[in-house]
Amino acid sequence: MENYSAQIQKALKGRGMKTGDVIGVQREKDYYEGVLMPRFEAGDPDCIVIKLQNGYNIGIEFTKGSKLKKLARPKAPLQELDLGKYRPEDGKKNIAILHTGGTIASRIDYETGGVKSSVSPEEILLSVPEIASIANIRTKMIFQMSSEDIEASHWSLLAEKIFEEVSRGADGIIVTHGTDTMHYTSAALSFMLQNLPVPVLLVGSQRSSDRGSSDAAMNLLCAMHFLAKTDFSGVGICMHGSPDDDFCYVHEGTQVRKMHTTRRDTFRSINTLPLAKVTKEGYVEYLRGYRKRGEAPFTLKNRFEEKISLVKIYPGFDYKILEMLGKEKYRGIVLEGTGLGHAPINVTDEMTKDHAKLLSAIKRLTDGGMLILMASQCPYGIVNMNVYAPARILQQAGVMPAEMTAECAYVKMGWALGNAKDELEAGKLLKENVAGEIPERIESRAFLY
Amino acid sequence: MENYSAQIQKALKGRGMKTGDVIGVQREKDYYEGVLMPRFEAGDPDCIVIKLQNGYNIGIEFTKGSKLKKLARPKAPLQELDLGKYRPEDGKKNIAILHTGGTIASRIDYETGGVKSSVSPEEILLSVPEIASIANIRTKMIFQMSSEDIEASHWSLLAEKIFEEVSRGADGIIVTHGTDTMHYTSAALSFMLQNLPVPVLLVGSQRSSDRGSSDAAMNLLCAMHFLAKTDFSGVGICMHGSPDDDFCYVHEGTQVRKMHTTRRDTFRSINTLPLAKVTKEGYVEYLRGYRKRGEAPFTLKNRFEEKISLVKIYPGFDYKILEMLGKEKYRGIVLEGTGLGHAPINVTDEMTKDHAKLLSAIKRLTDGGMLILMASQCPYGIVNMNVYAPARILQQAGVMPAEMTAECAYVKMGWALGNAKDELEAGKLLKENVAGEIPERIESRAFLY
Repeated sequence: MENYSAQIQKALKGRGMKTGDVIGVQREKDYYEGVLMPRFEAGDPDCIVIKLQNGYNIGIEFTKGSKLKKLARPKAPLQELDLGKYRPEDGKKNIAILHTGGTIASRIDYETGGVKSSVSPEEILLSVPEIASIANIRTKMIFQMSSEDIEASHWSLLAEKIFEEVSRGADGIIVTHGTDTMHYTSAALSFMLQNLPVPVLLVGSQRSSDRGSSDAAMNLLCAMHFLAKTDFSGVGICMHGSPDDDFCYVHEGTQVRKMHTTRRDTFRSINTLPLAKVTKEGYVEYLRGYRKRGEAPFTLKNRFEEKISLVKIYPGFDYKILEMLGKEKYRGIVLEGTGLGHAPINVTDEMTKDHAKLLSAIKRLTDGGMLILMASQCPYGIVNMNVYAPARILQQAGVMPAEMTAECAYVKMGWALGNAKDELEAGKLLKENVAGEIPERIESRAFLY
Repeated sequence: MENYSAQIQKALKGRGMKTGDVIGVQREKDYYEGVLMPRFEAGDPDCIVIKLQNGYNIGIEFTKGSKLKKLARPKAPLQELDLGKYRPEDGKKNIAILHTGGTIASRIDYETGGVKSSVSPEEILLSVPEIASIANIRTKMIFQMSSEDIEASHWSLLAEKIFEEVSRGADGIIVTHGTDTMHYTSAALSFMLQNLPVPVLLVGSQRSSDRGSSDAAMNLLCAMHFLAKTDFSGVGICMHGSPDDDFCYVHEGTQVRKMHTTRRDTFRSINTLPLAKVTKEGYVEYLRGYRKRGEAPFTLKNRFEEKISLVKIYPGFDYKILEMLGKEKYRGIVLEGTGLGHAPINVTDEMTKDHAKLLSAIKRLTDGGMLILMASQCPYGIVNMNVYAPARILQQAGVMPAEMTAECAYVKMGWALGNAKDELEAGKLLKENVAGEIPERIESRAFLY
């Protein structure tokens, strides 16, 4: 409370109020209710900051006439759910929910005013009691992390846990996951779980579960409906498909991106239509063909080479960044180039001195055995390095086109180098369509879909 | 021709055909016409590769029964245009067209099969003779480059040339430019040309002018119509607004991105609606409010600090990349973080050893005076580093939120450091809305618009 004015501190203390309490503030004709927040930024210390039910913070000027009252803090509706056991005898599908953290497992931290991971798997499920009637549910905590901290070792562990659950008889898997890197994880699982015989859906939320506008419940419910009905087998992402609470999309795990920082319908299929549309009532509409369970044996290939990097190209890009990665014994780099897969190798101008060095640096790295893929910073479409002369020159220097999103290319690079016996075999894997990551054709309707 | 089979080489030589010739190929019932291309890749050397009128290459199997004929090469319709002088007396506006290269100034190189910059300003204008009736046109070649090679020194030069043209009386400027980095250049010009009293539009094309589907002519025509009619003053991008040849959008120079590698309607306004829709018949519809000519003096601020970098964050990101930039005396870094502005600083997990080092590395750099901005790799929306605890920690370590696209933030970083007297003043500039780069609000309809 130290950033509040002496006058406000006195008023709050006098009424036994502390940050995290639900309070009401009357100022002239306006009345507000919300959670009393600490002040972080410099600003007007004579304003009381509360977090409204809709999740937004407002500052209310505190004057002599302002009235404050302390309200009861709403309790979470606690009830027991029968979780933890498959009951295969009843004809329902057996679904495992594996928890990894993220906003879906977060609530507002009333000490810091930020959102942090602190909701248990059971609490998440309590928000959607309906799902227990759709399938037999087993739930398991794998880790509890913000998704920006997840890295390859977590992907490997998660793939292993999924492999175990499927071996125990799971007919489908939900992975609750933070949204920031959900599309990296969905790509990693797509490569690591070869010939997956069941559907695996990553589900998250853009608003924490304690907010009125939380998308956690509906995303989980739609995922559960889809898993109970589908014959798709593979990895997907199930998240809001529109700004309203009307339906979710299921996206292919290797062809999807987080497209908006805040919207609930942030995940979008890239270069392809979503696999399906699912309503919370359980209506499933497939929007295109999809992979079904095959005959090939289910295999776990969850090794990953971490000495790889994803490097964004930009005007004035410094070749020394690549040289440094070479010195650090990196084995693979994905360049996020411009347009169809370009980089400033300076074949069209003499004003730029240093740029010619980029091509030499690339050549030295590929000569030394480094694998370099070129993806595009255009969110849609794929690279084509045969159209323009400079991109042909890059190919001659050993750069391979990555006909997929940059994020997916990054994941595939680490997976290929981790599981192939050498660079040659890894290079071959990079060119193959391993998990639906290379679109057969760019679906025109999918642009901005 | 060396990659063709002996049989094909013989047949072509016998008929006096060489790569670059327009030929007809009859194979059984099918007949194809196009430009004879060299073979590059390994493949079936018994196929003749021709580039069809639609721009695509096909390989046609050459058998004993195949027939070949040489066709006349279509000539460009040459005619003289009266360019090079303003004639202010006739009431028409005076428009300068400044050329910088790109696909709009390119044609297929029949020697390499790639596309290269080789079309003169006059040739470009010949493809749209109508524009000469809309305004008085002066045309000038600034440079002839693929836009991926353009860097800050070119932005400065271009800003200077625009400043000169406006000082000579230009009522509007068209800059022909490659599309790959057009949005970086439009941002750079937006910052460098302070209080610009006229409209400046960047125009490019996604298909070279010698292709039937070229968008060069319509984009130029729409830009010219807009410049002749508008009272907007500022920098914009004018490109196809739909996959058809029906209209162009004019986008604000600081809120726009190339969103697709190949589509002609690749440029999209980010977080805001396009400024206007323009048909090739000259109908202009404004979609929102825009900046008009003001009273403040037109100033050229075209210095730029090149010791800046744009660094993409990803799972497993190596803090050593930032350390290296510190050692190289970089003055500013834009991080393209995940979601609302996150990076793996490992505050939620202990499995990850190296990640705690990222936060320390960032702290050391900002303590040493480096400016660090955080943008998002989500194409839409902006960062908000107050929602989640880890982003608050990043702010405490000196990272500033960039409420704009990552590309624009990169350009603004270099411009601010180049023109401010020190880091303190540059840091203040980064927080100000200098050229419309910080949206007043995120326009909901603009998502995937």
